[in-house]
Amino acid sequence: MKVDLIIHNCAQVATMASGGKPKTGKDMNDAGIIKDAAIAVKDGKIVAIDKTSEIMANHEGGLLVDAEGGIVTPGFVDPHTHPVFVHTREAEFAMRLAGATYVEISKAGGGISSTIESTKNADEELLFNLAKKRIKKMIALGTTTLEAKSGYGLDTASELKQLRVIRALDEDLPIDIVPTFMGAHEYPVEYKNDHEAYIEILTQDMIPKVAKQGIARYCDIFTEAHVFSIDESRRVLQCAREHGMELKMHADEIEPIGGAELAAELKCTSADHLGAASEAGLLAMRDAGVTAVLLPATLFSLRSKSYAKGRFMIDSGLIVAIATDYNPGSCNCDSMPMVMTLACLQMGFTPVEALAAATINAAHSIGMAESKGSLEAGKDADLLIWDMPSLDFIPYHFGSSHICKVFAKGRLVHQA
Amino acid sequence: MKVDLIIHNCAQVATMASGGKPKTGKDMNDAGIIKDAAIAVKDGKIVAIDKTSEIMANHEGGLLVDAEGGIVTPGFVDPHTHPVFVHTREAEFAMRLAGATYVEISKAGGGISSTIESTKNADEELLFNLAKKRIKKMIALGTTTLEAKSGYGLDTASELKQLRVIRALDEDLPIDIVPTFMGAHEYPVEYKNDHEAYIEILTQDMIPKVAKQGIARYCDIFTEAHVFSIDESRRVLQCAREHGMELKMHADEIEPIGGAELAAELKCTSADHLGAASEAGLLAMRDAGVTAVLLPATLFSLRSKSYAKGRFMIDSGLIVAIATDYNPGSCNCDSMPMVMTLACLQMGFTPVEALAAATINAAHSIGMAESKGSLEAGKDADLLIWDMPSLDFIPYHFGSSHICKVFAKGRLVHQA
Repeated sequence: MKVDLIIHNCAQVATMASGGKPKTGKDMNDAGIIKDAAIAVKDGKIVAIDKTSEIMANHEGGLLVDAEGGIVTPGFVDPHTHPVFVHTREAEFAMRLAGATYVEISKAGGGISSTIESTKNADEELLFNLAKKRIKKMIALGTTTLEAKSGYGLDTASELKQLRVIRALDEDLPIDIVPTFMGAHEYPVEYKNDHEAYIEILTQDMIPKVAKQGIARYCDIFTEAHVFSIDESRRVLQCAREHGMELKMHADEIEPIGGAELAAELKCTSADHLGAASEAGLLAMRDAGVTAVLLPATLFSLRSKSYAKGRFMIDSGLIVAIATDYNPGSCNCDSMPMVMTLACLQMGFTPVEALAAATINAAHSIGMAESKGSLEAGKDADLLIWDMPSLDFIPYHFGSSHICKVFAKGRLVHQA
Repeated sequence: MKVDLIIHNCAQVATMASGGKPKTGKDMNDAGIIKDAAIAVKDGKIVAIDKTSEIMANHEGGLLVDAEGGIVTPGFVDPHTHPVFVHTREAEFAMRLAGATYVEISKAGGGISSTIESTKNADEELLFNLAKKRIKKMIALGTTTLEAKSGYGLDTASELKQLRVIRALDEDLPIDIVPTFMGAHEYPVEYKNDHEAYIEILTQDMIPKVAKQGIARYCDIFTEAHVFSIDESRRVLQCAREHGMELKMHADEIEPIGGAELAAELKCTSADHLGAASEAGLLAMRDAGVTAVLLPATLFSLRSKSYAKGRFMIDSGLIVAIATDYNPGSCNCDSMPMVMTLACLQMGFTPVEALAAATINAAHSIGMAESKGSLEAGKDADLLIWDMPSLDFIPYHFGSSHICKVFAKGRLVHQA
């Protein structure tokens, strides 16, 4: 068979193959390893993965890439990011270290409202260029599929602007970017004491317009004591569903107000954060098939003493994914390998569980598992060639990158 | 004046200038910033740092480098590493996550004795090539001065072999590498029950031979309940001093057995780790001028709930430095920026304190402050050009690198 690309001389290919399903329980520790392997790619898709001798006997490729005895994994899927904004907020990081409170930071002109203001005022080209630069760094660290949220506009025009930027990024960059509408990221200052009025804007104006433009696959909401209550969240999410969007939630990050339970009730695609979620809520999520997207880099950045109960979730059979939560406020981490290190050290994942959470389960959490997250015939050839002795090395080492080459849809998009 | 290199268009140069002394107390928060600056370099040394207009009016350079409005800092000084070994030990990382104890790991053929065995059996060329590859990754992350220890040989020939490899790395690589003899890293298996016999080898054979070859500047020792006792450490260190070596200690990492106190008594150059050191011991170190070298990435990697009392040390006026502790067992981190993030998040350093600890104070802790660790006329032109808005960004962001260019002694040694 004539193909476009053959990657050979792989000591191991960690396929993360899962028979079309996300990995749960003990299956998370099965990386689906094929040793002494090669991969054949045609039209951006994997056509075969097998022993090198088999592949070489049955395929001839235009491009022959020598993995030099390295290990191949799926590209990372980062299923929770906020990359479209203007300025980073490192000064707040320093203020927090010096003991400043949320209110003091806000009074000093910081906090999410400063991001909302500069994002609102920025033109699309600026937002595009800034986000593109950030995402290119993510690609170099192995991310080949990304979810990206709006939510720094909080008015219809600004939210649509952010979503257009995300669409433009998806079109321009060689990786796939899944767009999420998050007009319910926060109450705008002028609606802090009139939630009803903002919910009306969300449900009567923003969601219909976003849906009409077909510019967001998901609707996400920040369900937390100081932001959207359970009842408010239910109304917004139900409206989004009626308009054809799938659902995500920022749930129970800080306080257990029943966000996990609501995600289960609404059968959301995912509930994210979950730092304080109740065990009953988590088990309800499991029974409803809601993926838990955990964001350990955020709690690390916020100097949290406690983390989401990742070990309990895996042992209970939930579908568990991990993400960077890249954003300018609480977590400016863009590295999925570093998030794997944090998942292991702070939540007790095994290295292969962390890899499953960062690939196949992450793809599942953004509805992309048909084409992303594992290396199987028919899926996109999104893959990483690593210079390392085993998969355990990914979270064990942190700091420099040991990724030699990044391929997205069969195209070399980064080389160390 | 004719110079070799001018770096101009720097939004800020963080000189970390300290008037020849290490930074302590509130002075650690003074980055010595010069705005709109340029740097003139001749024969690998800084000849002037000033406003761009001043530098351009008074110097002409062979090479003109545009910092593009970036920030310039000193190159990092990593004052505690163990880079000369054969195999990484990621399998043990996975075993620890799965709950394996030190003894179980050791029985499975892991632990430091596995590193000692493979290092003993390796030839110099292999050790050199492996360490060179590791150190090149450190250089890309901004490290321009390194301390490197032996200590995986534990017999005279193997320790000398490691020190020759360190010397060869120093000669081959463009950065300066300070060699430390650490034959007292552990008791070899065959001397576990006969400490006296190994101390005799250390003091009668190894130290004299190392000293005679002039192949190590420092002698270091692992002073801990299960390794070298206080009395044993005193004997080894005093012998090393008599042979002209300066002194370092791995002190009170796990248990407070009086390592900090001994470091003060002996006026060691530094005492490192100090996770469990007593406050009295730390204050004695301060009074004796012993630098505390803190290794937060190690405690992070070991999932420690507690860290060295870095905040107390700074507030008490100790000289505080930070290092990666890069090694194959407890900490496979090679990134000084990541160690700055950990110093801030896990020990409460401010970003500029962390930078001082990673540059001028780190240089002081390995006797290199005359030429390294700050940007001042007469010092080596070891410097980094960063694409970031302020110094706070270094620990705030983690994951990808924002270093554009690394210069060592005026030579461009890495470019992003």
